[in-house]
Amino acid sequence: MQKTNRSILLVSRPKGMPKQEDFKLITNPIPEVKEGEILIRTIYLSVDPYMRGRMRGIKTYVEPFELNEVLIGGVVGEVIESRNSRFRVGEIIEGRLDWADFSISNGVNVRKVNPNLASISTALGIIGMPGLTAYFGLLDIGKPKEGETVVISGAAGAVGTVVGQIAKINGCRVVGITGSEEKKRYLEDKLEFDVAINYNAENVLEDLRTACPDGVDIYFDNVGGEISDAVMTLINFQSRIVLCGQISLYNKEKSEKGPRIQGSLIHHSAVMKGFIVGDYADRHHEGLEQLGEWVKEGKLKYHESIVNGLENAPRAFMGLFKGENIGKQLVKL
Amino acid sequence: MQKTNRSILLVSRPKGMPKQEDFKLITNPIPEVKEGEILIRTIYLSVDPYMRGRMRGIKTYVEPFELNEVLIGGVVGEVIESRNSRFRVGEIIEGRLDWADFSISNGVNVRKVNPNLASISTALGIIGMPGLTAYFGLLDIGKPKEGETVVISGAAGAVGTVVGQIAKINGCRVVGITGSEEKKRYLEDKLEFDVAINYNAENVLEDLRTACPDGVDIYFDNVGGEISDAVMTLINFQSRIVLCGQISLYNKEKSEKGPRIQGSLIHHSAVMKGFIVGDYADRHHEGLEQLGEWVKEGKLKYHESIVNGLENAPRAFMGLFKGENIGKQLVKL
Repeated sequence: MQKTNRSILLVSRPKGMPKQEDFKLITNPIPEVKEGEILIRTIYLSVDPYMRGRMRGIKTYVEPFELNEVLIGGVVGEVIESRNSRFRVGEIIEGRLDWADFSISNGVNVRKVNPNLASISTALGIIGMPGLTAYFGLLDIGKPKEGETVVISGAAGAVGTVVGQIAKINGCRVVGITGSEEKKRYLEDKLEFDVAINYNAENVLEDLRTACPDGVDIYFDNVGGEISDAVMTLINFQSRIVLCGQISLYNKEKSEKGPRIQGSLIHHSAVMKGFIVGDYADRHHEGLEQLGEWVKEGKLKYHESIVNGLENAPRAFMGLFKGENIGKQLVKL
Repeated sequence: MQKTNRSILLVSRPKGMPKQEDFKLITNPIPEVKEGEILIRTIYLSVDPYMRGRMRGIKTYVEPFELNEVLIGGVVGEVIESRNSRFRVGEIIEGRLDWADFSISNGVNVRKVNPNLASISTALGIIGMPGLTAYFGLLDIGKPKEGETVVISGAAGAVGTVVGQIAKINGCRVVGITGSEEKKRYLEDKLEFDVAINYNAENVLEDLRTACPDGVDIYFDNVGGEISDAVMTLINFQSRIVLCGQISLYNKEKSEKGPRIQGSLIHHSAVMKGFIVGDYADRHHEGLEQLGEWVKEGKLKYHESIVNGLENAPRAFMGLFKGENIGKQLVKL
């Protein structure tokens, strides 16, 4: 067995787009397991856009990452040593753990993953945080009704792909906005979105108008910026705007101005709600059950973009902002 | 009895601030009362900021006013002739009727006003549309909890004054933003707001910071623009932004840009909801009952700014955008 533990530190706060130099790989001995703790070998590491916010050094809903500390992210791993009676060696767990070969946990911040339900990697994707984000954001805030039109930005991402499919399960017309022809085809052909729009190839507003002849009832926003400006011109009376992310703005050094939207929200008696998946912590179990069932029944499909090697995690993270992933971006160790 | 009926037409769509020349007073015979109809003599006419939107000629939640047609607004009047079995001569009614000495109604768009409950003028104010707007906006969207901080823009207006007092009834800290020292004193001394800020005299953001040491839980927005930009920098986790009006923007010829707020709504799991009082049509009765009770118990105070004479209604309307009114602006005929 490997005797050393590689881990990735954040060594500088990114200015604009994160760069390789903002990260550093270090090697240490494998930590010792104390009473009550477990040692986890990382199998999959999750890279998520929200981590960019934690790199900023400003407190939002989570504490910022400390400089020169190991990054923390979603991990699926195997228990390889246990001094905690709740966990046995060989069990698969998921939790927010170190960007490292090995992590220590006291068992509080991890959950067990059933390897017979689906690929264990899905615990970081469709049957994990991104799936729950889609589930609660769409169902609890979006409140989709049959026949309504749902527009999704960042539609081919880990969250967007699930939002669109749950909207289809609920009988909605689903329009996805994405950044390449490959993703457009994936959404239309594999996930059966009614329309996908490639914002790099087309005039988003014009194509949205054609794709949404009855206007927009729900806008699930992962992207923000000018794409959202276009969608907002088409919202219906009593529409719901679900604010999940603003990935197009995360790497801007200065905050941008945009159209004032309050007047339109009043005219349309519309609601705009920001949320994080933690708001629904007491209902995560319900969400995971339902997502697992839909995956098992074949009603939810998923795609994973996988990069190999811990040393490539920063590159995979940076790729999120270039739209390199389809579905969930993972790092396999 | 007067034999002629004066009424006010909209003759041009205002560009920027409405002008006297956009309106025209004409004189016609008093209309004849047909079977099923009543003739109403106007006693009070309501001037409301939302009417500016109807003058724009663009369909929003209400149809635009037609050019060269009589303006329609809130009216309290007396039934002086009735060919409708539901109404007797001498009864007081409220409804959306002509800006005129006399109106005809088929009885569908009017409600009876109890003259023993309070001054009949309150049917256009605190126990009418503005009161209901405050009541549903604050209670249903704002959901105030004891000890929370509520900030109100346009605080000395017909809606703002009621919002602040209902927030006090609910045990909140109430901070009002208004445009003059007189209004500031009125809010602090007469309505017992915790703090009122005169945005014309002070640095709004600095004063808001002092007035809201625990941040802002509810922002009830009647004004929009830069005042809202300041408030939005202080919102708390899970705060509620109630969008009622954007009076600072109604007379802008071009739509302005402002800070993009979606990111902050996500970081704070905050909700922003636009509404109109018509969204709560099925609960208006409940609202009017409660507002009437609070007025009777002395828990809700009100102030009316009254201009005399139908011919002065356009001037009273224009005054709304200069902040001339404290509380409800009425025209008495």
